[in-house]
Amino acid sequence: MTRPDSREVDALRPISFLPNVAPHATGSVLVSFGDTRVICACTVEEDVPRWMKYQKVKGGWLTAEYNMLPYSTLERKQRDITRGKIDGRSSEIQRLIGRSIRAVVDLKALGQRTLWIDCDVLQADGGTRTASITGGCVAVAIAINKLIADGKLKQSPLKQLVAGISAGIFKDTAVLDLNYPEDRDASVDFNVVMTEDLNFVEIQGSGEEATFSAEQMSAMLELSKKGVNEIVKLQKEAIAAADKADDGALADLAAAFGQS
Amino acid sequence: MTRPDSREVDALRPISFLPNVAPHATGSVLVSFGDTRVICACTVEEDVPRWMKYQKVKGGWLTAEYNMLPYSTLERKQRDITRGKIDGRSSEIQRLIGRSIRAVVDLKALGQRTLWIDCDVLQADGGTRTASITGGCVAVAIAINKLIADGKLKQSPLKQLVAGISAGIFKDTAVLDLNYPEDRDASVDFNVVMTEDLNFVEIQGSGEEATFSAEQMSAMLELSKKGVNEIVKLQKEAIAAADKADDGALADLAAAFGQS
Amino acid sequence: MTRPDSREVDALRPISFLPNVAPHATGSVLVSFGDTRVICACTVEEDVPRWMKYQKVKGGWLTAEYNMLPYSTLERKQRDITRGKIDGRSSEIQRLIGRSIRAVVDLKALGQRTLWIDCDVLQADGGTRTASITGGCVAVAIAINKLIADGKLKQSPLKQLVAGISAGIFKDTAVLDLNYPEDRDASVDFNVVMTEDLNFVEIQGSGEEATFSAEQMSAMLELSKKGVNEIVKLQKEAIAAADKADDGALADLAAAFGQS
Amino acid sequence: MTRPDSREVDALRPISFLPNVAPHATGSVLVSFGDTRVICACTVEEDVPRWMKYQKVKGGWLTAEYNMLPYSTLERKQRDITRGKIDGRSSEIQRLIGRSIRAVVDLKALGQRTLWIDCDVLQADGGTRTASITGGCVAVAIAINKLIADGKLKQSPLKQLVAGISAGIFKDTAVLDLNYPEDRDASVDFNVVMTEDLNFVEIQGSGEEATFSAEQMSAMLELSKKGVNEIVKLQKEAIAAADKADDGALADLAAAFGQS
Amino acid sequence: MTRPDSREVDALRPISFLPNVAPHATGSVLVSFGDTRVICACTVEEDVPRWMKYQKVKGGWLTAEYNMLPYSTLERKQRDITRGKIDGRSSEIQRLIGRSIRAVVDLKALGQRTLWIDCDVLQADGGTRTASITGGCVAVAIAINKLIADGKLKQSPLKQLVAGISAGIFKDTAVLDLNYPEDRDASVDFNVVMTEDLNFVEIQGSGEEATFSAEQMSAMLELSKKGVNEIVKLQKEAIAAADKADDGALADLAAAFGQS
Amino acid sequence: MTRPDSREVDALRPISFLPNVAPHATGSVLVSFGDTRVICACTVEEDVPRWMKYQKVKGGWLTAEYNMLPYSTLERKQRDITRGKIDGRSSEIQRLIGRSIRAVVDLKALGQRTLWIDCDVLQADGGTRTASITGGCVAVAIAINKLIADGKLKQSPLKQLVAGISAGIFKDTAVLDLNYPEDRDASVDFNVVMTEDLNFVEIQGSGEEATFSAEQMSAMLELSKKGVNEIVKLQKEAIAAADKADDGALADLAAAFGQS
Repeated sequence: MTRPDSREVDALRPISFLPNVAPHATGSVLVSFGDTRVICACTVEEDVPRWMKYQKVKGGWLTAEYNMLPYSTLERKQRDITRGKIDGRSSEIQRLIGRSIRAVVDLKALGQRTLWIDCDVLQADGGTRTASITGGCVAVAIAINKLIADGKLKQSPLKQLVAGISAGIFKDTAVLDLNYPEDRDASVDFNVVMTEDLNFVEIQGSGEEATFSAEQMSAMLELSKKGVNEIVKLQKEAIAAADKADDGALADLAAAFGQS
Repeated sequence: MTRPDSREVDALRPISFLPNVAPHATGSVLVSFGDTRVICACTVEEDVPRWMKYQKVKGGWLTAEYNMLPYSTLERKQRDITRGKIDGRSSEIQRLIGRSIRAVVDLKALGQRTLWIDCDVLQADGGTRTASITGGCVAVAIAINKLIADGKLKQSPLKQLVAGISAGIFKDTAVLDLNYPEDRDASVDFNVVMTEDLNFVEIQGSGEEATFSAEQMSAMLELSKKGVNEIVKLQKEAIAAADKADDGALADLAAAFGQS
Repeated sequence: MTRPDSREVDALRPISFLPNVAPHATGSVLVSFGDTRVICACTVEEDVPRWMKYQKVKGGWLTAEYNMLPYSTLERKQRDITRGKIDGRSSEIQRLIGRSIRAVVDLKALGQRTLWIDCDVLQADGGTRTASITGGCVAVAIAINKLIADGKLKQSPLKQLVAGISAGIFKDTAVLDLNYPEDRDASVDFNVVMTEDLNFVEIQGSGEEATFSAEQMSAMLELSKKGVNEIVKLQKEAIAAADKADDGALADLAAAFGQS
Repeated sequence: MTRPDSREVDALRPISFLPNVAPHATGSVLVSFGDTRVICACTVEEDVPRWMKYQKVKGGWLTAEYNMLPYSTLERKQRDITRGKIDGRSSEIQRLIGRSIRAVVDLKALGQRTLWIDCDVLQADGGTRTASITGGCVAVAIAINKLIADGKLKQSPLKQLVAGISAGIFKDTAVLDLNYPEDRDASVDFNVVMTEDLNFVEIQGSGEEATFSAEQMSAMLELSKKGVNEIVKLQKEAIAAADKADDGALADLAAAFGQS
Repeated sequence: MTRPDSREVDALRPISFLPNVAPHATGSVLVSFGDTRVICACTVEEDVPRWMKYQKVKGGWLTAEYNMLPYSTLERKQRDITRGKIDGRSSEIQRLIGRSIRAVVDLKALGQRTLWIDCDVLQADGGTRTASITGGCVAVAIAINKLIADGKLKQSPLKQLVAGISAGIFKDTAVLDLNYPEDRDASVDFNVVMTEDLNFVEIQGSGEEATFSAEQMSAMLELSKKGVNEIVKLQKEAIAAADKADDGALADLAAAFGQS
Repeated sequence: MTRPDSREVDALRPISFLPNVAPHATGSVLVSFGDTRVICACTVEEDVPRWMKYQKVKGGWLTAEYNMLPYSTLERKQRDITRGKIDGRSSEIQRLIGRSIRAVVDLKALGQRTLWIDCDVLQADGGTRTASITGGCVAVAIAINKLIADGKLKQSPLKQLVAGISAGIFKDTAVLDLNYPEDRDASVDFNVVMTEDLNFVEIQGSGEEATFSAEQMSAMLELSKKGVNEIVKLQKEAIAAADKADDGALADLAAAFGQS
């Protein structure tokens, strides 16, 4: 079996993180998994949702919104506001992003504030939801470092990193990190979210008008574990680079982004 | 560890199916998993969605809608139409139900018609989504038998049965078929959809502000397999009973339902 | 003139009440008028609407919601949330149900709480609005008895029972309690709501692209009066049975409902 | 008992019709019942609703929309579009207006066109729904006369006139045509729609947290009959005046309206 | 070049103001620019928007809503609530009306209250937005005079009058106050809002699939200045007349309005 | 008077165009006016709106959508879909963008297709609407060049370029291209859209609770003319660069964008 882009079955696409693309957010990053690109931003609001106050829940909150920009798809995608309702798929994905990142944030230690994670897909080529979780976690890390630098937090409520990756059964073979042509033709589609210490946070596996066996599942989970292990290293580099950027190189990065 | 209702860790709650509760549907059933009760109805529309016609996709379609009746929860749940938008969780669940049942239906063999699966929760005590899949499949089987009896189909497009069940980590132990108190306190929540031949259709596992290990996952999947195996037997009995009902006992059942 | 189901012009369809079908509601009943079946639930909220607080109105409130389940009709009825707005007819009916039951409840004596009456039509065969009022009143009575049993109320704010019934001009003859085929072909359609002591609460009479005379109106009101008189007796039996059920037979009823 | 504005119990408020207030409509009238003023317009669309084409129903259609302008009430009423949904009361009233006028229009003879009746309340002082029916019928008559004058119809599909009037029990007495202070304090509120030949089209009677007897009902219906009889005479004069206006006096009327 | 209605290029259409057409508003006027007629009402709410309280902004607020009645156009215009969203053009116009009138009101001196300006177009023949600003200002003046008469304000927060007028390039010529046929065929469309002392408040000029030169712009602005100068005189007369009306002639005006 | 960023009164901020940021669009550009950054994309749909077909209008259409990303503002901006309706300001701006670009496109020569211009603000620092028009025009030019290269068009329907720029009265002085702090404190705000040959397409000038004189207006228009003249040169360079990019350097640009 040969993959459409000739990758090995266990190879990730090139992954990169361009930090600080949205300077008005507290933390932001443009994450790329091959041709899938998502703007992930973390904005801090110094307040908590009404239900937390009402139910007297201590600490903070973290919530996510996911959106495909109209020009991110091969055929233009109508905006939600034009259709008048949020896309069911988007609603499902943003709930997943929020749950995944909340699993590694100590909400009590966050203080009475809300972290808004916004994920806007600039270009969709498969795996946008796992790229959003991966990039969203980096944006959160950058934002939290800024809160610490600003003296608003003493220590990080981010217990460890979290990353998402897809795996699937494509032409009867388990493969890692599917791009759009693979995703479209895969008989099984897995999205796996794991922590830095390689425990699971979330598993979503779905046969597309097909079923799958326990063996296939094991193979996909094994690939996912390998993938997350590699991704976490890249996340750490990106977070470190963003912090250095704050110490002086921000202008350089902005220039690079604005003028190539 | 003792479960709140004293069940063994691998024991299902009492499961029952009362067929034909909504006689205007083509097939219907009231499914109970303990105190969780869901009205599942399958209505046949002799038409397909516009996108299928537009894209010239052959065959039929199957779609699901999931809704919690306002009095199904301990505290009254506001109707979606009052809030003005569909609940994110409901939207996610109905997509899952549709995908799960489509995995066992040969849409091409269905002919140019749509099966609408409606799942309205009458009483919620944990596991409403898996009960909906389980009951929805029974409603579909009854409806298809009726289409065959009416001469509209020659053979069944339902390739095999599908059932859903939950498992979770409750007090550090893997348990099967969580009721609401268990679900609320579980650290990990799994929903598993499997076919009659015990292949997977869908797996959704989520750590609620917690993570889980590969071993815990295996234990939950093992329990789920045992559970689905038992549920499928009950589904078959219910479908057979409903068919006999159609041959004459419908009035009896309706009377029982209406007047106890 | 012979009626489609051979009833006498002044005969009701078989009417029954199955209490406690929705155990999470404070009071509930499945009411049947022939093949018309409606789930009626009364849920108590220990709060009042904002406008009452704002305008400093004393006492409690009672409000109703009416909804046809998608599979209740011969052709599947789209959910309101899918259309994006509440059905005009449903909106009108739920206002009628609320007004009718408020007419027999002493809101001041209810205390600062809201009674939510939810009426979900399981099967529609004519007369769903009057069945909803009739069943809704029984659900309220059961809920209030529970509030009294729980020590939350000392005496009942339900001053007397209220019931609804339809009458119409079918093939030039006044008939009582129209089923769907009669309703569809009737030239005049009356819905009458009366109290236990046979005073009027609400009259809605409408010529469907036709008019009616004072004599026809008198005949329909006479039939309605006879009908309500009979219905009230059945309501009283049902309320008494539900109360006894609470004293021990609940499991029996639930079993009957769940397993026939 | 003395009425707030000293009228006899069976006296109507001053009623007037100012035709052609909205010249872009096919027919229009500003109807006044005392201080209740409603702009009623009938616009002809040379098409029928999609459901009529789909179900192959012959002839035309007539539908009504009712709306209270924000400044029509003592306290400013928020527009429906701001609240995001149509007011339940408005929805109910516009259905009533449509049914009432359809009862006197031969839809088959109308041809394949739709009559839109728009009723916008300029000032509300009780009885806006019956004023809307009364004025809406005049607007329809004017529009139909124009269709005949334009050669689009050979004879009128308006079989006879229809009018609406309110009656109620105020201070234990049956009174005709309640203004707002009477309406607010009435224990029973009746809206009656009758044709020119004094048959009933629609009766809606409602006890506001009260009940009413058969005797009270008879008294209110008797008053209503007297009222409609008087109103129909005024409608006929208004229709005749509008027609003459079309023959030349339109400019005069417009001038009067615009500059008093 | 001859204008469709034979006016001089710098001539306004006949302009009139009929005050107090909506007596439940604090101030109201029916403004006519030729066949363009708009009901303008100013309602006082003794409260300010939430954001002002939240941000602790002193003083009052003024906001406008603009709406075309369905029968105001040659072809019936669907209501916003039926479409489910506010018309983009209406939204833009009501923001313009609000800004324009706020420019001449000292919001601090208004006290903690909100002026709602409602502009409902009864007949549209070009220039409805500038007629709305012009009439809206008169309605505000009447309302403020009433607040002063009622002792709620000591002096007027209305610093001077404001008026709107349109100009355009029609058949290559700059013309003033375009009616609908001119507006439809104009290559450039200007809306100008000026104060009593002939300073600008707002200029909106737009080439309709065309561009315009600086010279053309100057010509249109010159015409607009002339127009506003004339309009302000009429506004002053109308405000004075409305005040006198309050002193006794209200009944006369209402009679004229109601019965011509 | 010194400007907050020390610019001369007639100086633009640094302006740049990064083409092809959204490769799934037919043409795209990230436009920067100082710290204001907008993603502008032009997507071609091979169809026209329903109203054009219905009214049998020949040629194509061009429409624009404008949206502020939630993290583009100093305080997070709620998404339109969360509020349930499109922002009034956004609606107004997208209408302006569409009109402005349609003024320079020969829609008949475009063929039966729609150009969708999407403008998503990544960072807002004043002047987002004029940046959107300026960048939108570049995206259209790139898209049209691609249509020509693909043989879908023979010659360009883009008659000339169009650009937008702001001017205003800041501390009593006319200044060009206001950033956010200037915009917030300006007493007058002008947005000017001009073509390459320096004719006007659109002028919108608004006194923010202030008025302005004819002299001030002239000064602002003079500055705008100078600004547009400079911007058009930059637009031309960007379009040329994007075309060369298509001939080979696309990968380089994408790399630069993705990895800096």
